[in-house]
Parts: sequence; structure tokens; C-alpha cells
Amino acid sequence: MGMEVVLGIDIGGTFTKFGLVDKSGNIHFEDEISTVEYATIEQFITAFHQHLINSIEGLEGDFHIQGIGVGAPNGNFYSGSIENPPNLPWKGRIEFVKLMENQFKTPTVVTNDANAAALGEMLFGDARGLSNFIMITLGTGLGSGLVVNGEVVYGHDGFAGELGHVRAVDNGRECGCGKRGCLETYVSATGIKRTVFELLAEENVESDFRKISFSKLKPKLITAMAESGDPIAIKAFERTGFLLGRSLADSVAHISPSKIFLFGGLAKAGHWIISPTKKSMEEHLLPIYRNKIDIVPSALLKKNIAVLGAAALIWKRLDRNGE
Amino acid sequence: MGMEVVLGIDIGGTFTKFGLVDKSGNIHFEDEISTVEYATIEQFITAFHQHLINSIEGLEGDFHIQGIGVGAPNGNFYSGSIENPPNLPWKGRIEFVKLMENQFKTPTVVTNDANAAALGEMLFGDARGLSNFIMITLGTGLGSGLVVNGEVVYGHDGFAGELGHVRAVDNGRECGCGKRGCLETYVSATGIKRTVFELLAEENVESDFRKISFSKLKPKLITAMAESGDPIAIKAFERTGFLLGRSLADSVAHISPSKIFLFGGLAKAGHWIISPTKKSMEEHLLPIYRNKIDIVPSALLKKNIAVLGAAALIWKRLDRNGE
Repeated sequence: MGMEVVLGIDIGGTFTKFGLVDKSGNIHFEDEISTVEYATIEQFITAFHQHLINSIEGLEGDFHIQGIGVGAPNGNFYSGSIENPPNLPWKGRIEFVKLMENQFKTPTVVTNDANAAALGEMLFGDARGLSNFIMITLGTGLGSGLVVNGEVVYGHDGFAGELGHVRAVDNGRECGCGKRGCLETYVSATGIKRTVFELLAEENVESDFRKISFSKLKPKLITAMAESGDPIAIKAFERTGFLLGRSLADSVAHISPSKIFLFGGLAKAGHWIISPTKKSMEEHLLPIYRNKIDIVPSALLKKNIAVLGAAALIWKRLDRNGE
Repeated sequence: MGMEVVLGIDIGGTFTKFGLVDKSGNIHFEDEISTVEYATIEQFITAFHQHLINSIEGLEGDFHIQGIGVGAPNGNFYSGSIENPPNLPWKGRIEFVKLMENQFKTPTVVTNDANAAALGEMLFGDARGLSNFIMITLGTGLGSGLVVNGEVVYGHDGFAGELGHVRAVDNGRECGCGKRGCLETYVSATGIKRTVFELLAEENVESDFRKISFSKLKPKLITAMAESGDPIAIKAFERTGFLLGRSLADSVAHISPSKIFLFGGLAKAGHWIISPTKKSMEEHLLPIYRNKIDIVPSALLKKNIAVLGAAALIWKRLDRNGE
């Protein structure tokens, strides 16, 4: 007997989280190891493999791992590589799937974390039954996963869905990508923090933010301050939502999704971010699209969507093969 | 015996063009009737049917019509309706497919003209074998057809792919849709004409354009003037290409196409429009997308792509059923 599961892995800049996920999206075991302490990808994979074996030996129940799904920054679904990941300790082009399959002897698929999140929502969240939707992940940066005709959009090169780098503001803020004015420099944990400091410079209003340095301000605090009525916090959410909504109106003109999901720390701000985003999106939409499209928080906001989504990569494939 | 063909119909504001198209994209007969002289859609369909019967009777050879494909402004692939078409004499929501099938007793499919153009390029032009590309049609306005994973993107409501209405310029030119700064107010036959007049206002340079009124300026003349070295014409193409390229960089961040095709009057300007568009797109692209994506004129530039594309709607469907 035993239970069929998929190993879902979410590789982040600091920690790598993973879990054993069954077909219904239940996580039977989850854990994490450090990403940052392994100087090479080979060391990381070896250590991870050993860690997993030790963990599984200690588990009750008999788990059969059907495959390994991985969400990683710049993970490429087609090539199986991770190419120049911005926040990982390993540089250049990493032949990730090849290295994993050599070590684990199990079929492995990789994609970027936002595409994995979209898949997670589609298989285990509120996008079940939807064929056209957008997932926006709001972390340090802004990631996105687009779903068209029931399939994640990878594009011709596996790199589609980089809405964090559309032009939000002409000649705007400096972006890590080398361009200026990219959406994620305004709409992300870091982006809204920058907006708080922009507002402190522009306005004279009293605010507790004036006592906190840029380095010390945690994005989470901005939601708490909005709740307690701080005018800078409230205005920061309004500006952030305005720019997100305006950009989403253009994304709608591309693929006309029925829903847009928000995930990540900033999405946890709930109506503070969603209300101004909706208002601005509706204002900027072409009339034929108006009052049709929901913007909602991910149903998996409190779960590890990246691990679930990474696992969904494999479950979706197994599903198709079984058709 | 006899030859299997599809009736491809392109409904335009003034004329409706149609042709009998075989599976290889050969047009065996083509003709047109007036669109504008029929006050109701019912009158139009009856007259068109009669016209077609008369035409076919006069043809040599025995043609079997397998289906009718129609490209029309605001044609909706899912619902079969034409909804509030901006440039047609018939208003409101027209149950077009139903009316056609009642009259012709033949399976009919409708989509908008730019989606039809994308399908035409995919079945009969230079997009053969491509799974991810964008078709931009430059006429009075700017239309677009997006292809992802080998399928035209219709979106959840059938209205995806309205790149003519993405935000090209903040608070820019007035658009027919009610918004401001839409891409088609800059990048289209009308758009470049507006740019010529903007330049006449901004600059003091001598130009033959100073002798022509706005109403009299034909967009075609702008290409001819660029060829003869007119500085306003050349600059107008540069500005047009700059804005098109900048917007396309954002479209690439959505679906990462391998190629972008241009069709329509403005596309016939060749390098005058393509060079500045490419240059600007590359400048605005996220680094991972650079030097990968071609911008080329449609291979069907001299053919009736809309009729071919409308026919392709049916051929693609018959192909799939035959799989």
C-alpha cells in the first residue's frame, strides 16, 4: 500500500522549503533547510538529499514519491535550468533538473516561483475550474504567473510572465534589473517601503514613520500603521494600489482573465491593498472589460503556496498522462 | 469530386470582402460587397447570401463549402456575437453566427479581425510552426492577436488582445474608447497622422506637410515623404516606433513571443516603422528577453490576410477534429 505523494520544493534566497503533497493538496510533512549556507549547487543538492532521507525514515506511513516539483527564481520549465537567479548564492546557468535527477533518480520539473503559485491556486485553491487568470506574488519583488486556456504561459523561451518589470512610471525608480520605473519598484514589500519614504519627503503630516530609518522599517508595519490610522501608511497603500491597478488594466487587455489573485506579504494587507487596486484597475480598463474581473487574495495565503504549486507541477503532468 | 473550400469573410466598416479558400491558403474566388448600404444586419446577410449564390453559379469547378469563418470588429469567438462594433452600421449586440447559420445552413465561426489575421499568419504565413507570437494590425486603429501555446488567446470573455488600448502615454491623446493615451492614438494610420501635426506645431523645420490640411493628409503619403527625406515624416516614424516598441516590451513581459508580426497600411512602410520599433523594444526589454525576438512584416502583407485568417478559423477546427 502506501500513499502517493509529490515532493514540492520552494527554493528561496535564504531558506528552501519543501513538503510531501498528496493529490488533494494535503501536505503530509514539511520542513526547510538553509539555501544560503551551501557555496555550490552540488553541495546544496547533496545535503538536501541526505536531509530528506533522514526525515522520511522518521515518518510514520509509507510515502511513494511520484516526482519532484521545484519553484525557484528564474527556474525555466523548458530547459530545466535556473539561469542567473537574482537572489540565490549560485551564479550563472545551473542545470538544475539534470543535477536533481542524478541525485534523486526521480522525475523533476522546475519553474519560477510565481508560475508555481499560479499552478498551486489552480489545483488546490480558488482558481479551480478557471481557465484564464493571473497570479501576482508580492514579496521582495513582484512575480506573476499567467494562465491562458488552462495552461501556465511559459512563452517561447520559458520566461513569460514578468509583470514586475512592465513600465509603471516613465523614468521612475531604479530597478534591480537595470531599467527604471518597473512595477516592482512600486508594488512589492520593498516598493511600498520606498513609497512611505517618498511620502515622508513630500508631506508635512505627523507620522510615527518619521522615527524609523529606511533600513529598520519592516513592510509588515505599514499594514499595522494603516490599521491605526496613520495617514502616510494609508496614502502609501493608495499609491501602491493605483499603480498596480493601472498596470493590471493593461494586463487584462492582453489576456482578459476572469480573476486576479494576490499572494505574499503585501496581499495579507487585505482591503488596504485590494480596494485601491480594484478602483484604479476599473478606471483604467477598456469599457468592454469593466465590472467583470475580481481581484482577490489567494485562498492559500496562509499555506505554503510555493511548495503546493511546485508539487502541482508534477500532479498536473501525471493527471494529463492518465487522461 | 469537387474541391473543399472555406468561405472566409472580412467585415469592414465600408466593404465586406470574402473569398473561397482551400486548405493550403489559395484563394479561388474573391469579391466584395458594401457593408455600409445595409441598414440592418438581416438585410446585409440576405443580400450577401444572394450575391454569393450568384457568384458561385458563375464559377468553373465544383466547390464544397466546409464552413464559414468571419473576422469582424468586436466579433466574439465564444458567443458568436458581434457586440457594439465601433465602425459598423449595426448597433448593439448582434447574434451574428445564429443569423448566418440560419441563412447559409453552414457551420459559422466569428472572431475579431486581428485574431483572424494571427490565425492567417499561423496557417498560411510566416508563423507556421510558431507557438507563441503576436500579430499587430495597423489600420485606422491598432488591433492585436496573441497566440500562446499554439492557440489564439480569447480570454475568459472572448475579448482578449486589445493592445490598441494599453497605456502608451500618461494622460495622452483622446481615444475613441473614452480613455486617454491609448497606444492606437499614436500607433495607427490615424495616430501617425496626429504625430505629423504635433511635429508641425513643435518644430520650425520646412516641410511639405505644412501645405496639407489634417483632413486631406493620407497616411500613405507619410511613407512617401519619408522616402523623399522629409524631416517631419522621418521623425513621425521615429516617435511612432518608439512608442510601439516601448509597449511591445511590456507585451513580451506578459507572453514572451518568439516573433511579432506587423500588418496593415503602416506595416507597408517597412524599415521606416520597423527599425525604430525594434530599437525601442530592445531598449525597454528586461535583459533576459533581449536579442531574441524578431519584429517582421506579415508574409501576407499583399494578400487579404483577414479573409485568409477568417477561413483559417474553420480550417484549424476541421484539422483538430480530424486528429
